[in-house]
Amino acid sequence: MAGSSYGTIFRITTWGESHGKGLGVVVDGCPAGLPLKASDIQEYLNRRRPGRSRYSTQRTENDLVEILSGVFEGRTTGTPISLMVRNTDQRSKDYSSIAGSYRPGHADYGFDVKYGFRDYRGGGRSSGRETIGRVAAGAIACLLLRELGITLCTYTRSIGPVSIQTFDENEIRNNHLNMPDAQAAEKAAAWLEECMSKKNSSGGVIECVVHGMPAGAGDPVFEKLDANLAKAVMSIGAVKGVEIGDGFLAASATGQENNDAFSADGNGRISTLTNHAGGILGGISNGSDIVLRAAVKPTPSIASPQQTVTREGKAASIEIHGRHDPVIVPRAVVVVESMTALTLADALLVGMGSRLENMKKIWLT
Amino acid sequence: MAGSSYGTIFRITTWGESHGKGLGVVVDGCPAGLPLKASDIQEYLNRRRPGRSRYSTQRTENDLVEILSGVFEGRTTGTPISLMVRNTDQRSKDYSSIAGSYRPGHADYGFDVKYGFRDYRGGGRSSGRETIGRVAAGAIACLLLRELGITLCTYTRSIGPVSIQTFDENEIRNNHLNMPDAQAAEKAAAWLEECMSKKNSSGGVIECVVHGMPAGAGDPVFEKLDANLAKAVMSIGAVKGVEIGDGFLAASATGQENNDAFSADGNGRISTLTNHAGGILGGISNGSDIVLRAAVKPTPSIASPQQTVTREGKAASIEIHGRHDPVIVPRAVVVVESMTALTLADALLVGMGSRLENMKKIWLT
Amino acid sequence: MAGSSYGTIFRITTWGESHGKGLGVVVDGCPAGLPLKASDIQEYLNRRRPGRSRYSTQRTENDLVEILSGVFEGRTTGTPISLMVRNTDQRSKDYSSIAGSYRPGHADYGFDVKYGFRDYRGGGRSSGRETIGRVAAGAIACLLLRELGITLCTYTRSIGPVSIQTFDENEIRNNHLNMPDAQAAEKAAAWLEECMSKKNSSGGVIECVVHGMPAGAGDPVFEKLDANLAKAVMSIGAVKGVEIGDGFLAASATGQENNDAFSADGNGRISTLTNHAGGILGGISNGSDIVLRAAVKPTPSIASPQQTVTREGKAASIEIHGRHDPVIVPRAVVVVESMTALTLADALLVGMGSRLENMKKIWLT
Amino acid sequence: MAGSSYGTIFRITTWGESHGKGLGVVVDGCPAGLPLKASDIQEYLNRRRPGRSRYSTQRTENDLVEILSGVFEGRTTGTPISLMVRNTDQRSKDYSSIAGSYRPGHADYGFDVKYGFRDYRGGGRSSGRETIGRVAAGAIACLLLRELGITLCTYTRSIGPVSIQTFDENEIRNNHLNMPDAQAAEKAAAWLEECMSKKNSSGGVIECVVHGMPAGAGDPVFEKLDANLAKAVMSIGAVKGVEIGDGFLAASATGQENNDAFSADGNGRISTLTNHAGGILGGISNGSDIVLRAAVKPTPSIASPQQTVTREGKAASIEIHGRHDPVIVPRAVVVVESMTALTLADALLVGMGSRLENMKKIWLT
Repeated sequence: MAGSSYGTIFRITTWGESHGKGLGVVVDGCPAGLPLKASDIQEYLNRRRPGRSRYSTQRTENDLVEILSGVFEGRTTGTPISLMVRNTDQRSKDYSSIAGSYRPGHADYGFDVKYGFRDYRGGGRSSGRETIGRVAAGAIACLLLRELGITLCTYTRSIGPVSIQTFDENEIRNNHLNMPDAQAAEKAAAWLEECMSKKNSSGGVIECVVHGMPAGAGDPVFEKLDANLAKAVMSIGAVKGVEIGDGFLAASATGQENNDAFSADGNGRISTLTNHAGGILGGISNGSDIVLRAAVKPTPSIASPQQTVTREGKAASIEIHGRHDPVIVPRAVVVVESMTALTLADALLVGMGSRLENMKKIWLT
Repeated sequence: MAGSSYGTIFRITTWGESHGKGLGVVVDGCPAGLPLKASDIQEYLNRRRPGRSRYSTQRTENDLVEILSGVFEGRTTGTPISLMVRNTDQRSKDYSSIAGSYRPGHADYGFDVKYGFRDYRGGGRSSGRETIGRVAAGAIACLLLRELGITLCTYTRSIGPVSIQTFDENEIRNNHLNMPDAQAAEKAAAWLEECMSKKNSSGGVIECVVHGMPAGAGDPVFEKLDANLAKAVMSIGAVKGVEIGDGFLAASATGQENNDAFSADGNGRISTLTNHAGGILGGISNGSDIVLRAAVKPTPSIASPQQTVTREGKAASIEIHGRHDPVIVPRAVVVVESMTALTLADALLVGMGSRLENMKKIWLT
Repeated sequence: MAGSSYGTIFRITTWGESHGKGLGVVVDGCPAGLPLKASDIQEYLNRRRPGRSRYSTQRTENDLVEILSGVFEGRTTGTPISLMVRNTDQRSKDYSSIAGSYRPGHADYGFDVKYGFRDYRGGGRSSGRETIGRVAAGAIACLLLRELGITLCTYTRSIGPVSIQTFDENEIRNNHLNMPDAQAAEKAAAWLEECMSKKNSSGGVIECVVHGMPAGAGDPVFEKLDANLAKAVMSIGAVKGVEIGDGFLAASATGQENNDAFSADGNGRISTLTNHAGGILGGISNGSDIVLRAAVKPTPSIASPQQTVTREGKAASIEIHGRHDPVIVPRAVVVVESMTALTLADALLVGMGSRLENMKKIWLT
Repeated sequence: MAGSSYGTIFRITTWGESHGKGLGVVVDGCPAGLPLKASDIQEYLNRRRPGRSRYSTQRTENDLVEILSGVFEGRTTGTPISLMVRNTDQRSKDYSSIAGSYRPGHADYGFDVKYGFRDYRGGGRSSGRETIGRVAAGAIACLLLRELGITLCTYTRSIGPVSIQTFDENEIRNNHLNMPDAQAAEKAAAWLEECMSKKNSSGGVIECVVHGMPAGAGDPVFEKLDANLAKAVMSIGAVKGVEIGDGFLAASATGQENNDAFSADGNGRISTLTNHAGGILGGISNGSDIVLRAAVKPTPSIASPQQTVTREGKAASIEIHGRHDPVIVPRAVVVVESMTALTLADALLVGMGSRLENMKKIWLT
């Protein structure tokens, strides 16, 4: 199916492979009048760019974005915004072992069954570079949300066995692991060194908190805001679990513990005293911070020998050398943020007509 | 938005409120030629029916399904199958406290902000009875999958602090809690008694295992099979977390632990030696069992006093009496199974044309 | 595919066959707060009801609509509105000739090829009764549009060789043929008598004019307002052509003739001096009346003998007796109006977020 | 809305403006294994390229297409195919008159109302150059259809008052007007000379005939094959009418004239003796040639003075000089063919699972 599009009104369509000519995204349905320049998008792309630390692939792509359409005189026109990043560092190498065998933990086998063959160079379409389009589009979604007073804060919550114990927002971009806790970042770095020495890799957890989200966004049944967030986040390669609010902890809690009491300030402005629900009840935002977490599996590309089979179904051993991140969590932080922002932007656009009086506000002039 | 539909080719549209005339679903896109009768669907509805145990609401609905269209001479015709269940036990009562105040843990406040007002009787559209349409449709999806050799096994994995320790498939429907471990079921029952005595409620975890799923279903980017499963399951009211395969455990694992080695039998048939991935890699099924889990929060309707506010933003206290399940997990088991089956049926239909040679198989005759 | 749904935000899903238990529609995405009662819908259904004149089928269905969900205290709640009409006059008869042979001009053969078999009673899903769901939903769309100052006027423009020469809106519902010209209606009636005496049938043209449509609705590329109107109208069984504004006449006109000059009144309010474009330029409404026409083919069910083949591919002769309209145009008038209204309602909802400032109007409070 | 995508499974997303950096399209959902090279696409783009005759704009774009993704080792991979054409001849000029006033017959006014401002250079997104993406994608759809034995023949049926009288397929690409009748082409050329001498322009009619279409494609209700074709063709700028088969002629015909009798050959292969229906009955293809026509309005850009208003609502006169086609019909021929092919390709993919036995053919192995 046409599985490269995401969103209903604010809809993105990504394209491109790891070792093709480039990657890109078409952002359709962005409202007209949003100030936008290439550097706004570049800032987000730089957060996922390889080669910035010892714990990310040493592939040296600049990932410079070009705006091809949809912006006129510094503002979005309401028509599709086409963004492209050219691949530059596609190191030529011998792919014969990857082409002929299935890498454990990768999509190779599924691609062959589904499509009959695959672009085996660097993972093709299932490469982590596929997220370039998500992040470029996510940058625009973040800008749009900011105009509505909504901001996102995303960070590494844990790497392998090391979780954050404190929270300092300023620290997040201060360490290579994007952890809001400098001490935890140090411990996590030591853990990663250990993994690397054993030709091993690590997983981790990413957390995203959304401030300023208005109540009333999302829908009651299949298009629940949390359902769409779950899809958005689970659609990122390597994510194996998603939680909203207390998530799996809620499953062992009681109603008395888990319910968030409502209160109101002097102006009748309603909020909750706690936020176990993570800002969403019955699929609709309730004005509290939206909180979600993504479980990211360890990088499947490891240099130690693994048992596998060839395309012909013969036993084989494979060692995956090359430029692979021992952990993808820090670089995936901005991807989680992007997918969250895209989902929220779309929900806000889709939900504008929930009341007849809203339609009148726009169309009766 | 039109948030009451789910699926692309196999698409369902549900309708109905807790205290309206009834609830139903239109199942569109089901292939023609599937044998179907009302009792096939009734069997699934009975699994979610209230009043079957001490731990589910005492509302006594028979939830008898009527097939209104789409079946001719005992087989589906390929046109929409309309299913309806009439509400019968809508006990008249005084809703004034619910109508005027926001129940903690419920969608009431969000509905009021979004729509300006709400059907406050029994939760209206956000009632658990909304899942009747999902289950009626899910029954058809399960029948369709069975024709392709695919079966689902779904059960309660934990309730509150009590998790299963053993697995006996025959035990699942043998106890009221749908646990595949009789001892755990007993302990969980004791825990629920304790909750009820304290006017409290409990959450739990549901697990679904899919056998016989062919490799090659799902898409590589936004329409990943696990992304759609995550949305499907998170769209069930009260679900706050979703895992595929090892889920959050994968986040603290290493690549050497988490990768599933491939092997092949004498006929070149490929499988994995372990199944940490839960049957899906890069968004595409790999032929192993699909394994997913849903974290269900505790029933928010509890009889102990809770702090809240009125629609006018004044402080209030609320106690929710009435016929509420102390735990919804056992009745939600069939809902998780239904949403999983619907997602798989749709993915299989959507993915039929992934190769040119497949198109030729159908259209060149 | 799931082909029984129409619309993006204001989305309807229809179900039901001619000789099944009933027919219905789920209207999802209607904004909350619209006053709605069954009689509002019944009024539209009565316009398409059979048995009202000598020129429509003598099947005597009352087609009473029941609102099953989505309305509370007299207003729409924003959740799905389920509407049902029970079939009552399903005269039992011998369908063996229809079941075994393909009726010329009907979908029988296509159904058999596509689905492998079909509900042959009265056309099953391809019966004209399928439009009940469209009209019931269209009634709601018309009510919604009226709240925004938009009204539709639809009528028979021609039947066979007889076209209207004058236009009197009050006359439209004054004659059985829904023509705004009493004299033309008389001539058309005479033409139909002639057709009937020859066991023949007639086609005709329906015209719909939309007053009060605001400028700025619709999209520039694939979701052009006229493209969606064309789909909406061509999706009505028996429609073989659609025109917007001057339609095919524009193809033989010159630019100097066909361009509509703009003018402005004293308040800077812009309009066009002529309306060759039919209210839509580049896919976007321009504030002039929207004008469209549908070409309706003659009723294919005729009592004179026709050459055909059996399901087994053997030559056969068929005469279609029973209760068939000699012309379906008058009853299809309200169907064209309904499909137009549904398309406009959806376009207005989809287009609410075309500007950043519109989003701020709804979400910044 | 995200109005730049078209199709459900075979889905395209176009982007780009007349005077931006370029234009392109992402083709998603094309089955894997289709042989494809840039020259296959270039051949179609050349058919719509400007500057090939005296009757098309003298803008000299080469419109060279670059394949950016989705093709590996000469075949489609099943992942998105990104295609781009750079703009090169964007003659700098003074746009002040166009920027400040609304061109009659153009979308300028609608854009301003909808989006608040517009890219006024050469029509921006509503320029005829927008069709580059459609044609590049349509070329791929045509290749795919050819693999299934389906071919399209599209041509100019009339220009202004001049219609074809004979049909010679070889003649179509032999004259600049793409008419299958050399004599008519000469007369039409004379007519165009007359238009040009009067600073005027002309409309015309395009016809498309599809050979080899299998029966059973399309759906019975809203996703009728002809409904989607109507949308596809009406979504082309300047198209004001669409007909299937006899179209508007059917409205004045009788059932005895219009019904197509079925017959069968010795092998039980069923066909129709006539083809008034244009290959589609009840929304489903019946195996006969699909025949459709599009009415194209005269080019709105004319050099004679026209009355209009400024953005501020003041009366103004406008003369549109520059490089404009006196008739766009010949260049739109390949656009109609492309939109038809895209619609058919999608319908064939969407309809693969109409029967349970089809699902088994693909998934039971």
